[in-house]
Amino acid sequence: MKDSLTIKFSQCVYEANPLYSMDALEAAERGILDYVASCFAASEEEGVKNLLNLVEVEGGIARSPVIGQHKKVSTKQAALLNGFIGHALDYDDVHSDVRGHPSTVILPVLFSLHAVNPTITGARLIASYIVGVEVMARLGEGIGKTHYEKGWHNTGTLGVIAAAVAGSYLLQYEVKDIAKVIGFAATQASGLRMQFGTETKPLHAGLAAQSAIQAVQFVQHQINGSENGLDGPYGFFEVYGNGVDFASPFILSNWGDRWRITNPGLWFKRYPFCSAATHASDATYRLKEKYQINPREIEAIRVIYPPGGDAALIHKEPSNGEQGRFSVEYIIASILLDYDLTIDHFQPKTIGSDIRELMGKIHREYDATISPSMISYPKGRFTIIQILKNKQVSWSERVDAPKGSFANPLTRSEVEEKLEQCVKDRRLAYKIKKSISAIKEEGVSPLLTLL
Amino acid sequence: MKDSLTIKFSQCVYEANPLYSMDALEAAERGILDYVASCFAASEEEGVKNLLNLVEVEGGIARSPVIGQHKKVSTKQAALLNGFIGHALDYDDVHSDVRGHPSTVILPVLFSLHAVNPTITGARLIASYIVGVEVMARLGEGIGKTHYEKGWHNTGTLGVIAAAVAGSYLLQYEVKDIAKVIGFAATQASGLRMQFGTETKPLHAGLAAQSAIQAVQFVQHQINGSENGLDGPYGFFEVYGNGVDFASPFILSNWGDRWRITNPGLWFKRYPFCSAATHASDATYRLKEKYQINPREIEAIRVIYPPGGDAALIHKEPSNGEQGRFSVEYIIASILLDYDLTIDHFQPKTIGSDIRELMGKIHREYDATISPSMISYPKGRFTIIQILKNKQVSWSERVDAPKGSFANPLTRSEVEEKLEQCVKDRRLAYKIKKSISAIKEEGVSPLLTLL
Repeated sequence: MKDSLTIKFSQCVYEANPLYSMDALEAAERGILDYVASCFAASEEEGVKNLLNLVEVEGGIARSPVIGQHKKVSTKQAALLNGFIGHALDYDDVHSDVRGHPSTVILPVLFSLHAVNPTITGARLIASYIVGVEVMARLGEGIGKTHYEKGWHNTGTLGVIAAAVAGSYLLQYEVKDIAKVIGFAATQASGLRMQFGTETKPLHAGLAAQSAIQAVQFVQHQINGSENGLDGPYGFFEVYGNGVDFASPFILSNWGDRWRITNPGLWFKRYPFCSAATHASDATYRLKEKYQINPREIEAIRVIYPPGGDAALIHKEPSNGEQGRFSVEYIIASILLDYDLTIDHFQPKTIGSDIRELMGKIHREYDATISPSMISYPKGRFTIIQILKNKQVSWSERVDAPKGSFANPLTRSEVEEKLEQCVKDRRLAYKIKKSISAIKEEGVSPLLTLL
Repeated sequence: MKDSLTIKFSQCVYEANPLYSMDALEAAERGILDYVASCFAASEEEGVKNLLNLVEVEGGIARSPVIGQHKKVSTKQAALLNGFIGHALDYDDVHSDVRGHPSTVILPVLFSLHAVNPTITGARLIASYIVGVEVMARLGEGIGKTHYEKGWHNTGTLGVIAAAVAGSYLLQYEVKDIAKVIGFAATQASGLRMQFGTETKPLHAGLAAQSAIQAVQFVQHQINGSENGLDGPYGFFEVYGNGVDFASPFILSNWGDRWRITNPGLWFKRYPFCSAATHASDATYRLKEKYQINPREIEAIRVIYPPGGDAALIHKEPSNGEQGRFSVEYIIASILLDYDLTIDHFQPKTIGSDIRELMGKIHREYDATISPSMISYPKGRFTIIQILKNKQVSWSERVDAPKGSFANPLTRSEVEEKLEQCVKDRRLAYKIKKSISAIKEEGVSPLLTLL
């Protein structure tokens, strides 16, 4: 019998050896820095306290740290919490092949599993993270654009599989066991975009991480499952995507030629809102830098996207700052009115009348005739902002590659700055930074004890 | 703003008052008897021990009983285990509107929540169970036939919502909170049919029950989520089904006119295999009763279904007895060769050459021109068995309403017999039987202490 796609994929994972790539290693360290920063930024969030309470009522053997909370909980619970915490402010990394958030699902699983398997080396953990991002990016390409457009939240649906595969690579599972883990993860894949703009969006990351831990544990405890979870008429790619034939080349071809954690790479955020609004915020900041713009003179603002480029920005008339994370209108108006785009600005609080009024002048348009630049990120994306005065376009700015993305990345020191801002305690931030730089040599335990 | 379908649905649930119906009450008691019987039948299963081990490694505050295991575990863990255990042998009830297994998802959730809320009355628990089955049946109609045909396992995808709604009815949640629970459950809905024929099929029931507990707990702990989870372009019915307009009439119309737990009712099984093979097994037993059939004389066997009627029977050439639960070929051949259809016969053991040889003579056919009988169950289903000798049909039998179904139900005493067979310990079986009959008057705790 011919091997299934699931088995062939598992073989690629089993044989993966990404640590010869210094770029991939460096990208992984930056990814861990950024993820930990995003977690600490959310440490005071009400939702984090609430979810921690929920978990504590359930009890469990305390083994894995809850990041930024000075607590330990059980392996599964830590995955749930750390997935939620990392994504709580939408401040964590994005990957354009994924169309979602890889690190906040993969790293909680690796940290949880490492906490109960402390002899695993730092090198193995970093390699597992690189493999996890690779898997999630390939799944994103293999599932096709329609998956997200239909209403799935890729962070949940693809994240559970990628994180489970990363976990089984961490534990050095054999090919058939990796294949089973994929099946266990695929049959738990979920997350609907109708939850965007609520706390349940970041909860999807936690739920996916928790389900990934389960998938790994089912194999550990000899639960029996399919080795062909991605295949066949009732398998993952057929039910959630465009079928196995469409997916196969994306999943299998050229393993090791380039690692997707470096190219197109993780996209780190400077501000805590949905990445699809980043082109617009960069453009607006540039306009403000270049020109004297009096908000009262503005008659209208056009925001021009390629068709579908604003799909994630589901709130045109947000009713509070939390929904504002998914509203390009809220973000542009806030910048023009001199509000700082702090974490506090994107909380579930009422929106002021000044912002509301300016939002009313902002309209989205779509233009399929404009060619995106070669460096556009995500591929094919751009945003043009046109501000109208006296019935004419007075000021205009276009962004194809926003700050943080592949062609315009955050430097390591900029990511380290983000960490310092988020951790607040300077000594702790310094120690975390050092322990992340030393993971490969000194292992993961020193970092985990700091979280 | 007009209320969403999710809110209207939640209103119907909130106002539901099924206990005036003596039929519904009686059906619920039979359902509990049959579910508990199915759990005890599986108490020696290897998979049950394995899953229990997995849970014990995780730890947790022991509060809810694991049925048939003399153990307690945490609320979520008990839901996972009891969902799995009830469905482990595919011996539990089915509902034709659901095209799946309601009790093994709903009852574990109700039992778990009752264990931590022991003041809830028996009447409320029974009403919650009736409401849960009602919700799952309506979801089954509202999601449409294509959902299952596409590859979803309705027990998982619909079960999580139904069980979560039953749990919030048990705890007397308000309308808006029921709506939130629906959203939390819908965004966790999963389960792929590619896992049929493995232990992961019953695991879907456990995972759905566990996710339902989470959905209920998220509201208890003030996690914020959408109140419109079934609605909109990225909501449940659009992503998993045929949209909200298709679903609405099934979800909302005529609440209380009839309770779906009585009509079309729960279908209880006499044998531990997939219900879609029951028509065929009944027909084969009748043929054996009526005629002297020598298996060696058989040239060929035709199994005639309406188109799609055998969709659940995914194994035409099963490689072991466990896959045989989903193989009409394995079941017919076993009956004709005088094997008893015991639990042991459907274990992951190699299939004997005699069965294998006879299976090779069995072929499925589909005939859309045959009208199903009015009493067919599930609606539109029938199976005809034709045995050929000397190139002619020598013996033929047709079944539209198999034993256990609405027009041909298992009596209460037949269900009680099943319980006695499964529990083995006669004194315990007697006590369980009595405590189920007395739930409404004496509450649920006496039953839970026996499990």
